[in-house]
Amino acid sequence: MSKLLYSTSMSLDGFVAGMDQGPDHPLGLRGELLHEWMRSLAVWRRDAGLEGGETNSSTAVYEQDGASVRSIIMGRNMFGGGPGEWDDGWQGWWGDDPPFHMPVFVLTHHPRSPLEMKGGTTFTFVTEGLEAALDGAREAAEGMDVGISGGAGVAKQYLAAGLIDEVGIHLIPAFLGRGVRLFDDPGMAGVTYEQVGVVEGPGVTHLTYRVSR
Amino acid sequence: MSKLLYSTSMSLDGFVAGMDQGPDHPLGLRGELLHEWMRSLAVWRRDAGLEGGETNSSTAVYEQDGASVRSIIMGRNMFGGGPGEWDDGWQGWWGDDPPFHMPVFVLTHHPRSPLEMKGGTTFTFVTEGLEAALDGAREAAEGMDVGISGGAGVAKQYLAAGLIDEVGIHLIPAFLGRGVRLFDDPGMAGVTYEQVGVVEGPGVTHLTYRVSR
Repeated sequence: MSKLLYSTSMSLDGFVAGMDQGPDHPLGLRGELLHEWMRSLAVWRRDAGLEGGETNSSTAVYEQDGASVRSIIMGRNMFGGGPGEWDDGWQGWWGDDPPFHMPVFVLTHHPRSPLEMKGGTTFTFVTEGLEAALDGAREAAEGMDVGISGGAGVAKQYLAAGLIDEVGIHLIPAFLGRGVRLFDDPGMAGVTYEQVGVVEGPGVTHLTYRVSR
Repeated sequence: MSKLLYSTSMSLDGFVAGMDQGPDHPLGLRGELLHEWMRSLAVWRRDAGLEGGETNSSTAVYEQDGASVRSIIMGRNMFGGGPGEWDDGWQGWWGDDPPFHMPVFVLTHHPRSPLEMKGGTTFTFVTEGLEAALDGAREAAEGMDVGISGGAGVAKQYLAAGLIDEVGIHLIPAFLGRGVRLFDDPGMAGVTYEQVGVVEGPGVTHLTYRVSR
């Protein structure tokens, strides 16, 4: 059965992004702290075309994260191009061969025709809301899983709607103090997650929860 | 070197107590969820005079929690007796042989003479603030460690003052939605904890952090 997955790095005070997110700071001020565990890995550096780095217990977590995902949902801000009506010249931040290599469904209030990019990435723009995007992404995943790539606002909407099946938290012992807190919806009181995996990495704990209904 | 320790159960949304704390609900509404991992342990049940229960990877965590502690700091609300001037008839919630069996330092704005109870528990009332209570508790611990037993408000004050050396979090995959959030002080931004221990228990992850300065 196709699952909807979301995984994110989170500070000990609950933030998944800092303040003032933007092109220069996609994770907000101080948000880079959240991804240090990943950037120190040899496997991440290789994917980014860099040398060096470590191999440790986080390596397998990084490699397995999203391995079953065959389609992606993202929010309008993550795709970029500013708010409002589309400028059709904007084709995302990633150039003509984006790193996704699979169907991507972009949630937006403004209709736009699909974009077919190189390397197997297609962007489909969905104006009918969360469930419509999920339906489209599930169909595109052909029985495999759907991943939410962000931003945090979109992930929070899917969480609140109870549509996510599995949540991965990479818990970082740092404090952001301000920003986007993942779990700040009083409406989630009463939901219990089933803890299905714990991996200790250096400077990070990788937690996996299955949403029990 | 004597350390100041604090450990607590915390929900995935960051709460260490629910709403409406009081004698009937010392952890607030729904706060009992936070301690289920402990109450299911045979060792906890034995301490509470009950039979049955499980032995699992949380057992050693429970047994080691506070094993090095030889004096305790607590807040006025935890000691009880209502706000304002003391009613000297009030000697705490625990009867004449409290379960602490060591010196306890109670933070209060209202002076009161020390209380010597049975079984080695003494209550000393400190009106000169956090550091004075810590100084007294350290001296009483004679080189061993000092523990903060709560409430959450007192723990948060010690955290904000940078006086805690080691923090233990028993992370529970439940959501309280409202209550007392442990890490909600923007002033902590920039502090980084060193992750020194991760233990996977059933339905709980035991995290230990050393405060790096």
